[in-house]
Amino acid sequence: MASISDIPDIVIGRLPIYLRALTQLVQQGQEITSSHELGQRLGISSAQIRKDLSHFGEFGKQGTGYQISHLQAQLKQILQVDREWPMVVVGAGDLGRAIAHYGGFVERGFRVVAIFDNDPTKIGTGQGNMKVIEGARMKSVIRELNVKIAMIAVPANHAQEVADELIDAGVRAILNYAPYNLNVPDGVRVQYIDPVTLLQRMTYYLE
Amino acid sequence: MASISDIPDIVIGRLPIYLRALTQLVQQGQEITSSHELGQRLGISSAQIRKDLSHFGEFGKQGTGYQISHLQAQLKQILQVDREWPMVVVGAGDLGRAIAHYGGFVERGFRVVAIFDNDPTKIGTGQGNMKVIEGARMKSVIRELNVKIAMIAVPANHAQEVADELIDAGVRAILNYAPYNLNVPDGVRVQYIDPVTLLQRMTYYLE
Repeated sequence: MASISDIPDIVIGRLPIYLRALTQLVQQGQEITSSHELGQRLGISSAQIRKDLSHFGEFGKQGTGYQISHLQAQLKQILQVDREWPMVVVGAGDLGRAIAHYGGFVERGFRVVAIFDNDPTKIGTGQGNMKVIEGARMKSVIRELNVKIAMIAVPANHAQEVADELIDAGVRAILNYAPYNLNVPDGVRVQYIDPVTLLQRMTYYLE
Repeated sequence: MASISDIPDIVIGRLPIYLRALTQLVQQGQEITSSHELGQRLGISSAQIRKDLSHFGEFGKQGTGYQISHLQAQLKQILQVDREWPMVVVGAGDLGRAIAHYGGFVERGFRVVAIFDNDPTKIGTGQGNMKVIEGARMKSVIRELNVKIAMIAVPANHAQEVADELIDAGVRAILNYAPYNLNVPDGVRVQYIDPVTLLQRMTYYLE
């Protein structure tokens, strides 16, 4: 098995897509699949899939395909989602609250444990674990719960200061919903969710 | 200028990121930038940026950098967001409503013109243009308003049937928030927003 630094991040980025497709196949009652079938579902060549997986070992036998449950378990282990990661959400606007209540995290390795906002009219609203907490308590909560992952859903002009605070408190992975390119130190990962960049990638092709 | 089919989609996918970074620079009062500065902001090499832009013509002079407003205008034209695209949202749950109310679309080329749901308790709720419309009227509204772009925010097990209906009505670009790999005909583009795949891409690196 290769070490972390050997494997291009673009390959790592495809593994969750493979995992999602495998989960769909299981839900449809399938037990075995092939790189060909996966490739057709995903619009990725079967050669690419085999090459990506080969970084991590031998998952299928020539001619018999992949046993889905085994491949799923291996991918979860590689991606370290064979456990549950606590996460915090910063920003309790429409989007932040929608994220905090999204039901799809838990079965895929994540749980939102707190949501923060500085707006006094929002603090204390929400139910149970998902009551909005004042921003001033963010660092102590993150440290106490040993949270490494955060989602930022604040306006773009506040995203950098929020990121700085999160990182200072120990966060090492940020999913940024604000359309702002964050500046982060080595050892911290950022991914962006900006629907407009994806829409603009498609309008290029529209007639 | 190269024709559509000559330019890799991965290049097209970076143009909106450049456009977003340019907008940030303008907001900070800057008028000129360089591939070096853009690259540092974005974690992309300056050579890559110059190569990407060179597909579309000559934007900067050697040694003097890019005039930001000119490059912005050109990128908007290339991406066809020098106009306003009407969009529909399907699914009026927490996420669908958050998307429909997101304030960041209009200034970047998009406007949500309708939101659909089949849940009788949701139909007619919301304000003004953003009143939830029954799914049965989806096709006629899309045709009437000549909508080419849709965002899907329904549960994963309904995503494919919704996509089929949208495409039948004339939609050619889908931003899919459901964690489900859609099967679409040639000529239809799909992009995915699945926060879990991005989170899983980061947990790989966490210690």
